[in-house]
Amino acid sequence: MKTLFTFIPPEELKQDLIKSFPDEDFSFCPEIEQAEKEIQNAEVIVTYGEDLTEKHIEIANKLKWIMVTSAGLEKMPFNAIKNKGILVTNARGIHKIPMAEFTFGLMLQHAKQFPVFKKQQQEHLWNQALPIFELSGQTMLIVGAGAIGGEIARLGKVFGMQTIGVNKGGEDRQYFDEMLTLESFITGLSAADYVINILPSTSETKHIYHKHHFEKMKNTAVFINIGRGNAVKTEVLMEVLQEKMIAHAILDVLEEEPLPAEHPLWDLENVTITPHVSSHSKLYLPRAFEILKHNLRTYTKKQEDYLNVINIEKGY
Amino acid sequence: MKTLFTFIPPEELKQDLIKSFPDEDFSFCPEIEQAEKEIQNAEVIVTYGEDLTEKHIEIANKLKWIMVTSAGLEKMPFNAIKNKGILVTNARGIHKIPMAEFTFGLMLQHAKQFPVFKKQQQEHLWNQALPIFELSGQTMLIVGAGAIGGEIARLGKVFGMQTIGVNKGGEDRQYFDEMLTLESFITGLSAADYVINILPSTSETKHIYHKHHFEKMKNTAVFINIGRGNAVKTEVLMEVLQEKMIAHAILDVLEEEPLPAEHPLWDLENVTITPHVSSHSKLYLPRAFEILKHNLRTYTKKQEDYLNVINIEKGY
Repeated sequence: MKTLFTFIPPEELKQDLIKSFPDEDFSFCPEIEQAEKEIQNAEVIVTYGEDLTEKHIEIANKLKWIMVTSAGLEKMPFNAIKNKGILVTNARGIHKIPMAEFTFGLMLQHAKQFPVFKKQQQEHLWNQALPIFELSGQTMLIVGAGAIGGEIARLGKVFGMQTIGVNKGGEDRQYFDEMLTLESFITGLSAADYVINILPSTSETKHIYHKHHFEKMKNTAVFINIGRGNAVKTEVLMEVLQEKMIAHAILDVLEEEPLPAEHPLWDLENVTITPHVSSHSKLYLPRAFEILKHNLRTYTKKQEDYLNVINIEKGY
Repeated sequence: MKTLFTFIPPEELKQDLIKSFPDEDFSFCPEIEQAEKEIQNAEVIVTYGEDLTEKHIEIANKLKWIMVTSAGLEKMPFNAIKNKGILVTNARGIHKIPMAEFTFGLMLQHAKQFPVFKKQQQEHLWNQALPIFELSGQTMLIVGAGAIGGEIARLGKVFGMQTIGVNKGGEDRQYFDEMLTLESFITGLSAADYVINILPSTSETKHIYHKHHFEKMKNTAVFINIGRGNAVKTEVLMEVLQEKMIAHAILDVLEEEPLPAEHPLWDLENVTITPHVSSHSKLYLPRAFEILKHNLRTYTKKQEDYLNVINIEKGY
């Protein structure tokens, strides 16, 4: 049985996999182009999820299962996959720890003025007279109260914060003091010190934040986007930040990625830009490979206990 | 009854105090020099704790109680205070929240490479290829497992960290997986990803870290000092960092404060210096004033339920 990778895993993980499944045939290709020759013989494809097209699915005559080692599935050719009855699993659940850590790091960086202290160090300046805030007692509005939002709320409660969550139907979730629906979330904006967007990209969530949403926020509020860049138009963010409607925006995702080098957003004083890395972690692939190995064992033993099976109709 | 302040509190807190105690006589002086004229008539002195001398205590004939609105008492003239039987209370317990938040902010800043991302933003550079670490799974050695160390350990457990604590006798403390004594703590250094010093300054803790302590640490370890600067000689830190024995030092306190502008430590690439601000918080004085008001009420009603009474013999 051939398992085809459309990326090259780190040597340690590769060797561990080969050792764990000595009877299986693994092919590791650096990119989908090099994998195309072998795709007809692959029963299993392991991919980051952004390279497979309808054409690949059409020619993959033996393909039974696609393991996506990420959580984003927007680019998957689900129609072709559905027609052929191919199983899809992903690595959801492994993002919540690094993304929640990243979010708290960014919030604390803002509250504790670390970039200003860094500048003072460069200037050899010992100056204590900066306003330093606490997370304790502050309110977070977490727009997207799934696994990642729940982990952020869990940490928030431990830091003594108020947590308001937003999901489609406004159902109660653990670690949230209050829940709002996607339709009513605008009512939570005025209470929030931190507005954290973790919505996935769907037709409902595209450009969901308009200028009037930011007008509702406190002028001391911080907007953090670690979800999808198209939740808000870059030109809206530019206006909001230039007019200082809020104190700061922290953007790990943007409508256009990479953000073009000449874009004026880079230079605004009240924005922090990171290059879509909130889920990055030295532990990311080891965790994804644990799921892969579990599912490979299930596959080879013809069992049914797959982890993270995707509902092809729903796309998640 | 005269209450003399050797600092000027923010207007809001001042007015709240006057309103809460309309029958009392408050004097607010910007510094001890201006307060000296009134010190003979003061029954109560409210101070940050670094300005009173033996001479002040000698001339303060009516003085019954000193409220120190900080936790550090090293500079208090305890002999003179003891001879006159003056009550001393302080603001201990209000430092743990801001200091634990500051510490986690600094650890996350290191693990998530925020200063490098900041530099990339200044250069308009979208580069994802930086190693990003997690706190989850890492080990903290908390040298000084009191109220502040306990709060850091509490957060550490929630972040999925291992917590090793150090106190005088090695007694068990909540949120610590393991405890060591001051004499044995060197044995915990090799396991730690983060070594956090929160020891107070005593004859036992002065210059407690020697070069051989840093030699025992991992070369990926981070040393964080939010306790007292004299726990380690600056020249030892310089050597350790220049020889890259550890990955990074984060120093909120230093042997000499302010660190002189011409000191070479400012410019080492593997050091982060903040100007003794880990306990700073917009909520610091409001919390200290809650303790002050409680104790003032106790004083005026001649009751005995003072908060945070200092044992003059022990000095804490």
